[in-house]
Amino acid sequence: MTAHADRLLLGPGPSNPYPEAVEALGRPVLGHLDPDYLALMAEISDRLRAVFGTANELTLPVSGTGSAGMEACLASLLQTGETAIIGVNGYFGERLCEVASRGGAQVVRVEAPWGTALDPADLLAAQRANPGARLLAVVAAETSTGVRNDVAPLAALADTDTLLLVDAVTALGGTELRVDDWKIDACYSASQKCLGAPPGLAPVTLSPRAVEVLRARTESVRSFYLDLGLLHEYYVGASHRYHHTASSTMAYSLHAGLGRLLDEGRDAVWARHASVGGKLQDALAKRGFGLIADSANRLPQLTATTLPEGLDEAPPRRALLQRYGIEVGGGLGEFAGRAWRIGLMGHAANERSVLALLGAVDELLG
Amino acid sequence: MTAHADRLLLGPGPSNPYPEAVEALGRPVLGHLDPDYLALMAEISDRLRAVFGTANELTLPVSGTGSAGMEACLASLLQTGETAIIGVNGYFGERLCEVASRGGAQVVRVEAPWGTALDPADLLAAQRANPGARLLAVVAAETSTGVRNDVAPLAALADTDTLLLVDAVTALGGTELRVDDWKIDACYSASQKCLGAPPGLAPVTLSPRAVEVLRARTESVRSFYLDLGLLHEYYVGASHRYHHTASSTMAYSLHAGLGRLLDEGRDAVWARHASVGGKLQDALAKRGFGLIADSANRLPQLTATTLPEGLDEAPPRRALLQRYGIEVGGGLGEFAGRAWRIGLMGHAANERSVLALLGAVDELLG
Repeated sequence: MTAHADRLLLGPGPSNPYPEAVEALGRPVLGHLDPDYLALMAEISDRLRAVFGTANELTLPVSGTGSAGMEACLASLLQTGETAIIGVNGYFGERLCEVASRGGAQVVRVEAPWGTALDPADLLAAQRANPGARLLAVVAAETSTGVRNDVAPLAALADTDTLLLVDAVTALGGTELRVDDWKIDACYSASQKCLGAPPGLAPVTLSPRAVEVLRARTESVRSFYLDLGLLHEYYVGASHRYHHTASSTMAYSLHAGLGRLLDEGRDAVWARHASVGGKLQDALAKRGFGLIADSANRLPQLTATTLPEGLDEAPPRRALLQRYGIEVGGGLGEFAGRAWRIGLMGHAANERSVLALLGAVDELLG
Repeated sequence: MTAHADRLLLGPGPSNPYPEAVEALGRPVLGHLDPDYLALMAEISDRLRAVFGTANELTLPVSGTGSAGMEACLASLLQTGETAIIGVNGYFGERLCEVASRGGAQVVRVEAPWGTALDPADLLAAQRANPGARLLAVVAAETSTGVRNDVAPLAALADTDTLLLVDAVTALGGTELRVDDWKIDACYSASQKCLGAPPGLAPVTLSPRAVEVLRARTESVRSFYLDLGLLHEYYVGASHRYHHTASSTMAYSLHAGLGRLLDEGRDAVWARHASVGGKLQDALAKRGFGLIADSANRLPQLTATTLPEGLDEAPPRRALLQRYGIEVGGGLGEFAGRAWRIGLMGHAANERSVLALLGAVDELLG
């Protein structure tokens, strides 16, 4: 290994963790059935409930990344041949389709062009056309395009037999998300974006209605590792039945990141992301960058932007990393080769990040 | 949170990580597509090859615990309805059956009583009776009983169409394991036992023959997260196609743990585990503890032991933790309530651990 690289992480995630979350990584390791570890997990669940805005009992971190959280929800709630209605307007909507299909579900796609928001009316209409659908899934903050999809109107699904599943990987802790108020039945996120911890854990929460669906399954969850019923028994059940060797190292760090977030306050954190993201977006527009999402549906924590005058995105992105140690992401899918994705998330969502990036951009492109 | 607990971890894992592995956790986080991160992953793969004893190109850490490694191998190599022959003489053999069954495979069990070793002749006979079996799986070091299962004779499977899959979760870095010499086609382990890092990563290696099986699948791997083909493209493929947000935090730590192991040397590490485990086992026998595995098949790194005079195992185990901060594990399955499982693994495999534990046992039971 050469000397350690030190990055300002302004890509689509991971972001730079809060100092408290880094410090917590060094704490002595606890066994996965140690009473102190189980108490730590209970506190993490409480903190996650506060951040998700939920009273759901089944609220826990899956031992994997956000994609593991996605697969845990889909695998635990869908049985072979059941229908999943999925909103697709970017890479992570596509991934939801792929994971659901691999798991044996029938997928009904509801699409919008990349860079625009899904119309909740289209999603609700698809549910009326498929009233037996087990769930309807949407990505709240589409990390591939910087688009915010409107989730609140989908609360109407609570009056149907279809569960509402929301991908909050980039949304949670960055922009408004209210699991109980919006009647979300299943929601997953990731530790390394707006929650301000390193990658490795995927917070998940299930409503009582979703837990009923899980309990009423006639087919085993195909995945043992990602079976939310088994995870629930381990973390929350009275017997704490052994399931896997959960990592106190990652748990301590997530606990610390959530603590920092909640000390600041959920509304204040949302406001900080909005303010800092807005500042970046205004400055980019002035420099001739194109903002892919329109202003009504634009995320502050993740900005997808085309470069001025059709510049090839890769060389200046490499220079940002090599010369200044600043990471931004390249475009995905339809925007590959012609866009950047700039994250301002968690601890990195501050004015210093914006100024450092703009200064570097001005030196490279100015 | 109360003050941080500080444990001597002598249970079935996690063990106390090497100081170098703890220190590495605090390094600046790198993005999952950062060239420095990909170079780190390449070094980790090299180190894993040295520890596994293999030249396999597909050698990488799965972003999950040992159970994720198990499921990644089974899900990636088995298609619906294919046959898996599984050796069962403890809890983790049972888990192999459960994971394979959930995935849609037909399981052929080859059993031995808990606490005894599987007979390789029985396993090979089962393969002759099921020559179309896709794979035969065995746990090299059965963490539930402290029994070593003999893997080397199973190299004969290389002359058949059946792959040899070995669970090395507790074995790797603790006792002899030679992937290429023993013609193992798929092998998985975990970061938190004899490799001396915290939990969170599951090293996996596949032989070229296993990679061929993976490539020749006609059915998608049901799991996206644990699809070893996609992980291979991400970590090893020229394009490093994005799959998930792998954690540089955990990777740095595993890299450091493996470095420490390889600096000591694989043979020396095996000898250290043998020496320290033997010392513990001799001392336990003198105190009237019963060693569950017979001496020919007894692991040094994990000792399953009944207590003297039929003592209830739970109260002294709790006292070890509460009074001395020493963790040992309780019995699993057939040994629940009447055995301890004592790990001496990785950094914790030293004489000081043995003396501290024996001193505490003498105070509590003497």
